[in-house]
Amino acid sequence: MLKNIRIVLVNTSHPGNIGAAARAMKNMGLSDLCLVEPRKFPHRDAEARAAGATDILENAKVVDDLDQALADCQLVVGASARSRTIPWPIVNPRELASIVAPLADDVRVAVLFGREDRGLTNDELQRCHHHVHIPVNEDFSSLNIAAAVQVITYELRMAKLSDVDEAKPQWGTDWDVELADNRELELLFEHLEQTLIEVDFLDPDKPRNLMPRLRRLFMRAIPDKIEVNVLRGMLTAVQKCTKGKES
Amino acid sequence: MLKNIRIVLVNTSHPGNIGAAARAMKNMGLSDLCLVEPRKFPHRDAEARAAGATDILENAKVVDDLDQALADCQLVVGASARSRTIPWPIVNPRELASIVAPLADDVRVAVLFGREDRGLTNDELQRCHHHVHIPVNEDFSSLNIAAAVQVITYELRMAKLSDVDEAKPQWGTDWDVELADNRELELLFEHLEQTLIEVDFLDPDKPRNLMPRLRRLFMRAIPDKIEVNVLRGMLTAVQKCTKGKES
Repeated sequence: MLKNIRIVLVNTSHPGNIGAAARAMKNMGLSDLCLVEPRKFPHRDAEARAAGATDILENAKVVDDLDQALADCQLVVGASARSRTIPWPIVNPRELASIVAPLADDVRVAVLFGREDRGLTNDELQRCHHHVHIPVNEDFSSLNIAAAVQVITYELRMAKLSDVDEAKPQWGTDWDVELADNRELELLFEHLEQTLIEVDFLDPDKPRNLMPRLRRLFMRAIPDKIEVNVLRGMLTAVQKCTKGKES
Repeated sequence: MLKNIRIVLVNTSHPGNIGAAARAMKNMGLSDLCLVEPRKFPHRDAEARAAGATDILENAKVVDDLDQALADCQLVVGASARSRTIPWPIVNPRELASIVAPLADDVRVAVLFGREDRGLTNDELQRCHHHVHIPVNEDFSSLNIAAAVQVITYELRMAKLSDVDEAKPQWGTDWDVELADNRELELLFEHLEQTLIEVDFLDPDKPRNLMPRLRRLFMRAIPDKIEVNVLRGMLTAVQKCTKGKES
């Protein structure tokens, strides 16, 4: 799906923005870049800001007008700062991703980004099926082009990934150790309680809410087996010191 | 909520990235920027890339170390390219937003971004409750810092916008106690380390991964102020016993 999404930059003034957009695209797994009448391209600033995404720049198609950029695309979406004279179907980047994700693999999608200073013209916007608007701070709404490309391609990528990764491991990462089971936790809490009595921190006649508080704290962390072993090792070390004192 | 989120840039090399990050922040409605030992700041490249967000740069706090950046923060999250030696709870930007959105309005959150060439150090990552990872293309995973700030602040903003009606409190319940801030947690870990040395459980010459493991465990639970006080009370009780033995 991501391979079939073309990013179209119209009349970009600053070549650095083209480079940064290429980098954002490659980071998110896109590769099809089309430049409509860029002011300066190729240019060293584009290379510099692309970091390692120079292949995207080298393969970019440079064209004279929008027709050439869009000819083979079935869905065209224009990035728009605000609604124009004629209201148009407008989506945010997440909604756009939810429109694009279910499309067949061979549907070609183009997302258009306009000029740094004044975006896309009304004519260009009217070539689009949808407009996509990033919900920016109203008091400071001018988003850098590469930043807009970053946000929109990120959403497209997230939509693609969410098809795949339903079963996510605990805490979002593969944990290296099995989680402790309930029996191990109960033994830990017994050990903790006993030790706290021995160091005179817990008065068995006036236990208050100490153990429930500690249980709640440790349970929230969902400890693994090694962590429980480490905690019990600490308690044993404390007990050894305490017994040393008494004898 | 967005006003209470601090973006912390650690050791940034290129002032242009600081400016672009400030612009991304302002676009998304954030304003609290903290710079830990920036290589060059203030700098004209930062001004240029900030576009109209110079107020964010002017109000940025420049500090010498991470302690000063994080002291008053209750939730600390580090941007991480991949999982490190010890796995840490890791979320994507959307999951991060779903954690941050339900927090009470006065909870201060810090999101840390590391150096251009090598990100955050292991020590810095171990100061964090969670790591946030942007699911990039594995073949080209080095994301520009400002682009990472853009994606994460975009998700935070989206969560805030969608979250007006459906706010679920942290841990699914209204918490009765304020969360501990970073300074309190660091004092707790110092106290814990000291006590473990005194009971001969931790060998300062061979610390292995003991403290990182314990940090990770307690950070996962996101302790509140009373819990931290209880833990420190326990440590003091243990120390009293140990000292009793020695004398």
